[in-house]
Amino acid sequence: MTTSRAGKPRRFSADDLQAFIERAFRAAGVPDDDARTVAELMTRLDLMGADGHGVFRLPHYIRRIRAGGINLHPDIRTVRETDATALVDGDNGVGHLVVSRAARIAMDKAEKCGVAWVGTRNSNHAGAASIYAVMPLERAMIGLYVAVGSANHLPPWGGVDMLLSTNPIAVAIPALEEPPIVLDMATTVAAYGKVKTAAQRGETMPEGWMIDRQGKPLTDPKRADEGFLLPIGGYKGYGLSLIFGLLAGTLNGAALGSTVVDFNKDDTTTTNTGQFIVALDIKAFADLDTFKRDVDRVIREMRSSDRLPDVESIRVPGEGSHATFQERSRSGIPIPDSLLDTLNALAGELAVPVLSE
Amino acid sequence: MTTSRAGKPRRFSADDLQAFIERAFRAAGVPDDDARTVAELMTRLDLMGADGHGVFRLPHYIRRIRAGGINLHPDIRTVRETDATALVDGDNGVGHLVVSRAARIAMDKAEKCGVAWVGTRNSNHAGAASIYAVMPLERAMIGLYVAVGSANHLPPWGGVDMLLSTNPIAVAIPALEEPPIVLDMATTVAAYGKVKTAAQRGETMPEGWMIDRQGKPLTDPKRADEGFLLPIGGYKGYGLSLIFGLLAGTLNGAALGSTVVDFNKDDTTTTNTGQFIVALDIKAFADLDTFKRDVDRVIREMRSSDRLPDVESIRVPGEGSHATFQERSRSGIPIPDSLLDTLNALAGELAVPVLSE
Repeated sequence: MTTSRAGKPRRFSADDLQAFIERAFRAAGVPDDDARTVAELMTRLDLMGADGHGVFRLPHYIRRIRAGGINLHPDIRTVRETDATALVDGDNGVGHLVVSRAARIAMDKAEKCGVAWVGTRNSNHAGAASIYAVMPLERAMIGLYVAVGSANHLPPWGGVDMLLSTNPIAVAIPALEEPPIVLDMATTVAAYGKVKTAAQRGETMPEGWMIDRQGKPLTDPKRADEGFLLPIGGYKGYGLSLIFGLLAGTLNGAALGSTVVDFNKDDTTTTNTGQFIVALDIKAFADLDTFKRDVDRVIREMRSSDRLPDVESIRVPGEGSHATFQERSRSGIPIPDSLLDTLNALAGELAVPVLSE
Repeated sequence: MTTSRAGKPRRFSADDLQAFIERAFRAAGVPDDDARTVAELMTRLDLMGADGHGVFRLPHYIRRIRAGGINLHPDIRTVRETDATALVDGDNGVGHLVVSRAARIAMDKAEKCGVAWVGTRNSNHAGAASIYAVMPLERAMIGLYVAVGSANHLPPWGGVDMLLSTNPIAVAIPALEEPPIVLDMATTVAAYGKVKTAAQRGETMPEGWMIDRQGKPLTDPKRADEGFLLPIGGYKGYGLSLIFGLLAGTLNGAALGSTVVDFNKDDTTTTNTGQFIVALDIKAFADLDTFKRDVDRVIREMRSSDRLPDVESIRVPGEGSHATFQERSRSGIPIPDSLLDTLNALAGELAVPVLSE
């Protein structure tokens, strides 16, 4: 391992990383099938470059499991149902399992009804939103996913009490020859993970990410606890965060506002996290190939626009993560040394083999 | 009329305004029932304070009708259908008629299936998004509406070719004792109407609304043609505008990107405007009163937050327009003199009685 200290982070294949995550979860008591499902989803996030949501989260997830904050044998079940909707109670299981189940139900119902909307409650943090939005793509459907974030980081617009989270949205739309369009965004200018990363690296944040309780720009990420994230477009992003929270949380009987548990600080209280996923069958609206070709046309128009000075290329959402996925599938997933040390210490605690090539 | 020149704008009752709009449309050849429907919706926007989308638009709509750009006897029909979806072809009819029809279909289908998603194509500009999002509230449903804007005002992020519109979203969620939450927002920092208003008033725009083709802030609204609107949150708002455009436009076989017709500059080319509306039945997820009470709780938490210095009150989306609706229902709708002159000139052209108390 010493060889890597001088230069680039070591890289691990997706298979090796997935196997490591899987054995960690199994050692922590997660049943085999469930451990495999969660490990596969987390590894996919690392492949896509969502580094803050893949194996990086493993120590935190395991800590919560060991503290008793997660139900390892949940009865994940549909508690309300119509032809095109369902409400899934996750019974405090691992979020990835709950949302995967919700996504499958949504696709099955959309197959029959053209569209389906499935909500969750008693779920947990489930990783980056995009992995669920892309699931319906397999079945020629558009996916739309919204989650209530697992810690409040912003107040209502004009306020100082942190009552809202970054409540992200992800939407995935297939193309024909182009990669699918995959939007995955927090309703804040910066996701909280970016603040953490800036703090780790000793960097200053740009103005516009955070303000302090006097409303002044806060640029020192080490002082993040003294301020809060800014929503995109000011009151508009506040409105989006609130609306997404009501749809993904309140409507499902899940937490929002003062009832949200900060899962960074509290390992044991049930979070009652809410999410929802919509699957929309393209053939209910259009001939599939015609639609995909039209999406190609739109993508190419965007990309071919003349550019502002100093702009090298114009992208569509998902293009960067698609390229990262392909590159990492070939060359492996880079794991920074500090994270590798943490993961191998965790392996020691769990008495499982360390991450290795 | 001269009495008002000195002071406040004259006010007209909703009934009088609606009757005026109705007779203008009838004189322009719109069938009686349709004229009444459109007049009612436009008046509702004036009552809500969406001044850029109510009677203010009448001269433009009439101009387009007289130029032959609108089909006055459209065969608005469902061209594709599943249990929970429909695609409505508006046959180039007035947008308000097309979207109202789509909203009714969505509510009927959601009654049976829990949720419904109805798209439109060959529609036209239909006024502010919120009037459609609130329609499902009558039936204890949540409404969500997205439209492709009727002129492109922004490029893809990093570009300079105007390929996207402000593509707005509106969502309406009912509460119990509180007014419903109604979010209605463009995906740009400022709607284009605000730029027009600033130009009329000779005001300077704040930095952040627009940039010029060199990427520099553009603050003179009279130079608006030399620049473009900025999306909220930079690339995030660009992503939202693109995704909303694909879902409301491309999926329905409607215009997006280079195929969008600028209805400000072109009175005759069919716009092929696309929209979609989702109706979501609350009782598919929750007990209705429990849900509404939970929404009240969330609204009150937001409003009770401690505030930043110099902030007088914290609002939730829709609160301002709700108050305006109530005030204008009592005291009438203020019509600025310049608009009144324009409307009365229009009345002369159409040989109908002018707007009067």
